[in-house]
Amino acid sequence: MVNIGIVGVGLVGSELLAQLKATGAKRLNVVGMTTSKKMVVSNTSYSALDLTQWKTDIQEQGIEANLGVFAKYLSDAPDHGIIVDCTASDAVAELYPSWLELGLSVVTPNKKGFSGPLSLYRSIEGLAGNLNGTGKAPFAYHESTVGAGLPVLSTLSDLVRTGDKVEKIEGIFSGTLSFLFNNFSSLSGEDKGTFSENVKVAKELGYTEPDPRDDLNGMDVARKVTICGRLAGVDLDLSTLPVENIVPGPLQTVASADEFMAKLPEFDDHFAKLNEEANKENQVLRCVGLVDVKGGQSGVKLMKYPGSHPFASLQGSDNIIKFTTEYFPNGLIIQGAGAGAAVTSFGIFSDILKIQGRVE
Amino acid sequence: MVNIGIVGVGLVGSELLAQLKATGAKRLNVVGMTTSKKMVVSNTSYSALDLTQWKTDIQEQGIEANLGVFAKYLSDAPDHGIIVDCTASDAVAELYPSWLELGLSVVTPNKKGFSGPLSLYRSIEGLAGNLNGTGKAPFAYHESTVGAGLPVLSTLSDLVRTGDKVEKIEGIFSGTLSFLFNNFSSLSGEDKGTFSENVKVAKELGYTEPDPRDDLNGMDVARKVTICGRLAGVDLDLSTLPVENIVPGPLQTVASADEFMAKLPEFDDHFAKLNEEANKENQVLRCVGLVDVKGGQSGVKLMKYPGSHPFASLQGSDNIIKFTTEYFPNGLIIQGAGAGAAVTSFGIFSDILKIQGRVE
Repeated sequence: MVNIGIVGVGLVGSELLAQLKATGAKRLNVVGMTTSKKMVVSNTSYSALDLTQWKTDIQEQGIEANLGVFAKYLSDAPDHGIIVDCTASDAVAELYPSWLELGLSVVTPNKKGFSGPLSLYRSIEGLAGNLNGTGKAPFAYHESTVGAGLPVLSTLSDLVRTGDKVEKIEGIFSGTLSFLFNNFSSLSGEDKGTFSENVKVAKELGYTEPDPRDDLNGMDVARKVTICGRLAGVDLDLSTLPVENIVPGPLQTVASADEFMAKLPEFDDHFAKLNEEANKENQVLRCVGLVDVKGGQSGVKLMKYPGSHPFASLQGSDNIIKFTTEYFPNGLIIQGAGAGAAVTSFGIFSDILKIQGRVE
Repeated sequence: MVNIGIVGVGLVGSELLAQLKATGAKRLNVVGMTTSKKMVVSNTSYSALDLTQWKTDIQEQGIEANLGVFAKYLSDAPDHGIIVDCTASDAVAELYPSWLELGLSVVTPNKKGFSGPLSLYRSIEGLAGNLNGTGKAPFAYHESTVGAGLPVLSTLSDLVRTGDKVEKIEGIFSGTLSFLFNNFSSLSGEDKGTFSENVKVAKELGYTEPDPRDDLNGMDVARKVTICGRLAGVDLDLSTLPVENIVPGPLQTVASADEFMAKLPEFDDHFAKLNEEANKENQVLRCVGLVDVKGGQSGVKLMKYPGSHPFASLQGSDNIIKFTTEYFPNGLIIQGAGAGAAVTSFGIFSDILKIQGRVE
């Protein structure tokens, strides 16, 4: 038996509850859930909460949220407890070490704890049995921080633990930037519109952050690069990682997203020129994240790839990640949807099952 | 602590021993190894065997191989035991249920136990905690039976266990057939030689079985399709699965590999015509395995793919596997080397670590 407490029941948290309910997952009890304001925990027997009416229950029976009380409740149980952090909060991520110290495992799609200060990461790493080499509970799994449910971190971890020498991890880690450049820069000859037109479409489809500069500045990719790098043994740090911000300089400081969108067309020629230069060499533009284990070239960059490269033929908003290693000198590639509630929740659920398999 | 016994110390078994030695894997003791003729087991304290001179030890100190005695020795230990079957033997695979009944886990790249008679598979499935839903030891992991160390079966298993609905599994599962068709059938316009010339090159490079018909007949792919299908809940059976044998009819019965190779050029026009027809539609030929969960179209077929499809731009002898599911309607794709001692052993080693994580 494993007890589960969910912190943050928005889009991803709700989907996770739906997946848990739909599968009738055995011996997995959701015994607590909390928003930033209200929380519900089960009784002293840790009976499973009713997953058909949890929204009403939080609203009507929820007490004031308190993550300290929430964690204590889970850690007092006779069975192993997992806290699933479905927020994107720095403050919540900073609590992971305290939870691990209580013997609770952590599963999360929240990038903050694993890409933030190295000291926080070291602290999590030292306490989690899957990261510190002891193999003992508690654990900290974070598959969905990179490529959502795509088996990126589990594969990387397997490569490292079996003695493979990872040389390079290269990928299109952002669904937004994938969509933008797959459309804007191709060798098909078809005119898919200017750069600003593509940003507009992506924004309208809900593929970008409310301010698209939060995607174009590369910081989301940088966090994923940092997470992969650290798992591969390279102490990357967000504050020193070279990150190419593809937002044109003058637009980096304009006040609002609206103003940014209004002025972006003035820079279409700049992007068109970059694209034409690439196309002349039979190449396309892609915004990639790179972990360069030996050479120190890690970072986020706008790069060119020949038409025959798997990155060039990417479709939609798919992510693609390529590991180049001693075992796989020609690359091990993983590709697919890397954003969205269903696939993020799939990654979380898989991590929960991995922990269950280790503690039962 | 986990004890390991290795059955078959040829190319893959030797590589596994090298990887285990190189990583100094903690709490993993190799305490026995056996060829078809001779075996070595450790002492009654289950001390780790010396991995620097195991070849000499088998030769000089080996006693007559006896898999019954070997399994009994492992199961008598206080710690959990894993038998790694690195053979391709039907007879060895038939012993898995007896080993599982003794409480021993099984890890193997041997396809026979998982693609052979459904009764044998059912028996393994019922006894192995990772397949029967109990999560209890012993376990039977077989990642390397499909795509070698590529995370194919672990991903499929995660999808199924988290309630995803797998609709289709489609892949180029054979390194040999991948190499052949990637070269023979492309849209690059470059002349890469006739079909028979490509078979000759593949044979000379050691990419084919001694008799290339053992690759071209599709049976290796059929076994992998069967394994994936069963894990996805479809009771495929080798004896009824439609398998397209691309060996021209008259050559299926010629006596020797040499005679086959000598006569194959007479059928180059046949293959050239198929290729030209595909190319006219901007498509290429690929020999794929298919699990069609709903529609019953599972099998092994020579199919056509447009140039923009990931299967069309495959390089070298890489495998590529695409899952189409409810969570991943546009596909989750895994690509990379799917044959060779290093990557096969990587898959075995990863499976061993998964079991260690569950029993320690």
